[in-house]
Amino acid sequence: MNFNDKLEKIIKTNNSLLCVGLDTDISKNPVFEFNKQIIDETHDLVCSYKPNIAFYSAQGMDGINALVKTIEYIHSNYPDIPVILDAKRGDVGSTSKHYAKEAFDIYKADAVTVNPYLGFDSVKPFLEYHGDKGIIFLCRTSNPGASDFQDLKTDSSNVYLEVAKKINEWNRNYGNCLMVVGATWPEQLKKIREIAKNMFFLIPGIGTQGGDLQNTLKNGLRQDKSGLIISASRSIIFSNNPKKEAEKLKKEFNKYR
Amino acid sequence: MNFNDKLEKIIKTNNSLLCVGLDTDISKNPVFEFNKQIIDETHDLVCSYKPNIAFYSAQGMDGINALVKTIEYIHSNYPDIPVILDAKRGDVGSTSKHYAKEAFDIYKADAVTVNPYLGFDSVKPFLEYHGDKGIIFLCRTSNPGASDFQDLKTDSSNVYLEVAKKINEWNRNYGNCLMVVGATWPEQLKKIREIAKNMFFLIPGIGTQGGDLQNTLKNGLRQDKSGLIISASRSIIFSNNPKKEAEKLKKEFNKYR
Repeated sequence: MNFNDKLEKIIKTNNSLLCVGLDTDISKNPVFEFNKQIIDETHDLVCSYKPNIAFYSAQGMDGINALVKTIEYIHSNYPDIPVILDAKRGDVGSTSKHYAKEAFDIYKADAVTVNPYLGFDSVKPFLEYHGDKGIIFLCRTSNPGASDFQDLKTDSSNVYLEVAKKINEWNRNYGNCLMVVGATWPEQLKKIREIAKNMFFLIPGIGTQGGDLQNTLKNGLRQDKSGLIISASRSIIFSNNPKKEAEKLKKEFNKYR
Repeated sequence: MNFNDKLEKIIKTNNSLLCVGLDTDISKNPVFEFNKQIIDETHDLVCSYKPNIAFYSAQGMDGINALVKTIEYIHSNYPDIPVILDAKRGDVGSTSKHYAKEAFDIYKADAVTVNPYLGFDSVKPFLEYHGDKGIIFLCRTSNPGASDFQDLKTDSSNVYLEVAKKINEWNRNYGNCLMVVGATWPEQLKKIREIAKNMFFLIPGIGTQGGDLQNTLKNGLRQDKSGLIISASRSIIFSNNPKKEAEKLKKEFNKYR
């Protein structure tokens, strides 16, 4: 099934826009057992899981094994929940093909995050690799330094809006694109939604990073009150009660929908 | 030793600007043995080796093991030759720290390539992780699609030149930055050299991608006739005689110096 269809379906089934980021720290050992518990407690409250590969590859083979096992566990036990590999990959075309293979064949992700700085021919191998996988491009990142290059003024707008226009165009041609827009930038989110009326956005930055939830939903939702995957990582997985924390966030999102 | 110092030293010892890209395809099995032979044949002709991690991680655990063994082999047998991990990483600060750990502690690279799209706070953990490692930022990539976003006109210039200015500023503050400029863009290289007079540039794109070698050296060399790491991958490692091919390129570079 196409990634966006899989996503729409689980958003309806679980009535949730919440994506749980599995950014599991090395101190939470064994990592797979830690993730398994989070997943079992939250599977009926989420629309996706998003492990960030950096946290696993920094732990060498053990970390990589834990990541493989975590994704396998989700697919085997909760096959309707898509897995987003947060990897922010991107290279010249002949190399990007290998990164697509890494994400989709080695880790069996349903979607991968990609950095668009190198332009279209660098992202084409991701778009075409299996065709039905989700390709989630960085547009406006949640960190403060996002403004360094993404805000540069261009002839007609700003870099991040030019990037949004291109991603929207790629999506018209391929149908499997999404984009990242940080909850820390609600005004920019509004402008990006005006450009890409029908796309899904992955929204980081609501938890520890202090994003503005109410304005994110107001400015980011599509007309059908969907179109957002709102991710929270540390605030859920390191809380004393992940299930309760996930329930709280799910409800808060739905209150503003 | 600081990465740039290590680089200056080997450039003098081997009288070479050649970096051999170890982009070893899965068909060349066993991968480590294949790399070992290339390294043994070329170690006195190069200033660095540059394995691209995508080629290894796309092969799962076997690929990752081959990468670890390859880098260990270089450090053990040719400790003066720096290893650049071509990984094009980059994420928000709290995640970039893990990518720095991946590159420097897990893979033991001397330098890593980084995508600057997320801005300063996203690259700071790389700059500070060990302090003496090389951080090689994408500025102007070698692929045709580089023009999509890197050429966007800004108030005073273009995105890639604004990126070059920032990287040059980061280098003034940290002293361990380099940047990637594709040999396929000699005019842009000239402008970047005007901005960053003292920095090292990593130059891909001379082989299969058809970059212009003579103009690359003319426009890219620093006043001291150094300051470039020119990488070639497929044209060397998949040739019938890698040693001869590396010798030929080394000489060709020196002819134009």
